[in-house]
Amino acid sequence: MSAFNLKSYLHTCGQLTGEALHRFLPSEEVPPCVLHQAMRYSVFAGGKRIRPAFVLATADCLGLPHGGAIHAAAAIEMLHTYTLIHDDLPCMDDDDFRRGRPSCHKQFGEANALLAGDALLTLAFETAASAPAAPASLVRTLAAAAGSRGVVGGQVADLAAAGTPADVDTILFIHEHKTADLFRAAVEMGALAAGATPDTLAALSRFGRATGLAFQIVDDLLDAENPADTSFSCIHTLGIDSAKARAAELTNEAMRALDGFGSSAEALRQAARYLLERTT
Amino acid sequence: MSAFNLKSYLHTCGQLTGEALHRFLPSEEVPPCVLHQAMRYSVFAGGKRIRPAFVLATADCLGLPHGGAIHAAAAIEMLHTYTLIHDDLPCMDDDDFRRGRPSCHKQFGEANALLAGDALLTLAFETAASAPAAPASLVRTLAAAAGSRGVVGGQVADLAAAGTPADVDTILFIHEHKTADLFRAAVEMGALAAGATPDTLAALSRFGRATGLAFQIVDDLLDAENPADTSFSCIHTLGIDSAKARAAELTNEAMRALDGFGSSAEALRQAARYLLERTT
Repeated sequence: MSAFNLKSYLHTCGQLTGEALHRFLPSEEVPPCVLHQAMRYSVFAGGKRIRPAFVLATADCLGLPHGGAIHAAAAIEMLHTYTLIHDDLPCMDDDDFRRGRPSCHKQFGEANALLAGDALLTLAFETAASAPAAPASLVRTLAAAAGSRGVVGGQVADLAAAGTPADVDTILFIHEHKTADLFRAAVEMGALAAGATPDTLAALSRFGRATGLAFQIVDDLLDAENPADTSFSCIHTLGIDSAKARAAELTNEAMRALDGFGSSAEALRQAARYLLERTT
Repeated sequence: MSAFNLKSYLHTCGQLTGEALHRFLPSEEVPPCVLHQAMRYSVFAGGKRIRPAFVLATADCLGLPHGGAIHAAAAIEMLHTYTLIHDDLPCMDDDDFRRGRPSCHKQFGEANALLAGDALLTLAFETAASAPAAPASLVRTLAAAAGSRGVVGGQVADLAAAGTPADVDTILFIHEHKTADLFRAAVEMGALAAGATPDTLAALSRFGRATGLAFQIVDDLLDAENPADTSFSCIHTLGIDSAKARAAELTNEAMRALDGFGSSAEALRQAARYLLERTT
């Protein structure tokens, strides 16, 4: 029995990340005000700060106080927010709402939303490059995960596959890049900030990837409960039972990657289990 | 009389930058192929590689061989190309053509063009962070110049001012951020790659800023010859004669910033004069 309380841990991580984002984002009084309003509107929209929590929990696991990884945590949340803003645009998923509020382009217009996304992506790298340790490695890790062979590549494949029954290889490509790459990067950035050895980095990287893949399957399962959703989903191909089994198997894979870490990895383990249990 | 030949110098810089871009950009055979095709379509569209030439000429001026600054040169051209792709989108300037060919979104569709721009912006930072010297400083300099207080901020102000007569402060804000920030960053990145002292960096930074401001006025003068152009222009406020005088004055300011540099800065001086002389 562990006395560790995941809910309060995630709450603390979210608060630290929120405070850092307030510090790193330009004030709404800095011109052009509408741009900074749009950036803050989307960054402070009630997101759960899951990716930053994985950055901070990884740093924790390696003995680095949260302050040492806060640039990485804020950077990955800025980057995640840019992907949501651009995803919602009319030429992409064309979503008018996000977390119960008008999406960024419904609130500020398409051009301002496009540019707010661009500015958040840019600020993510400026923030990572301002970290106290390993700034260039943080930037390279984040950029490789976010770029054409990572998140952006996954989005292109996702758009191409929408509305068609996808084969298993296509599903894996999309889940790997659209989602798992950023979870992997979150964990790797926490590890790099803490000065992890290559072996430790590799094990944590496997944990981040498996957790991200499981997270996306669970997301697809949750979306499957909404019959109006026509976006790409692995459930059309795998079916509900097989998708649930695959998510559980990936979560076990994530746990095995942490075998050598002992109790210092308790936050990572519980966070990964919590993501799985959203559907079960 | 200098024996220095600017035309052949710029040609060499363009060739080196083009070769580096070919190396750093993923091949069109890497999935998702359409994304990499779109990125390469826009990067290899016949651009003049002016900003990379300023990176390389600054490195030259400080005794750094071109190879030492090639990451910075390629990064700034990727970043410049992303701004062109996003600028051309329907929600921005809605341009169907760029350099005599269909713009990226006319050729590949809006979503792919949006994502190709995102991927180039991301790759610009990955490339800068892979430089052999001062990678984190290069990323911070490029991001600060490109972000919400730089190029993106200038574009928001430019869109807000289009079609209205702007006052001189607004013109300066737009020119400073939409254009001069990236010229300044080009020169600063060349200087950082070469390990410049703070005083040298500051002088070169003044040179880059003044050259960029002059460049944008000359661009507005060239656009004024096309009566179909309705985008924001300083000519509506300043008039042709006053704009020409201001561009010449800024070029002189750029020359004065190089006073302490002797003949090693000949490429920078001639390049700045060449940009001015496009209209006269």
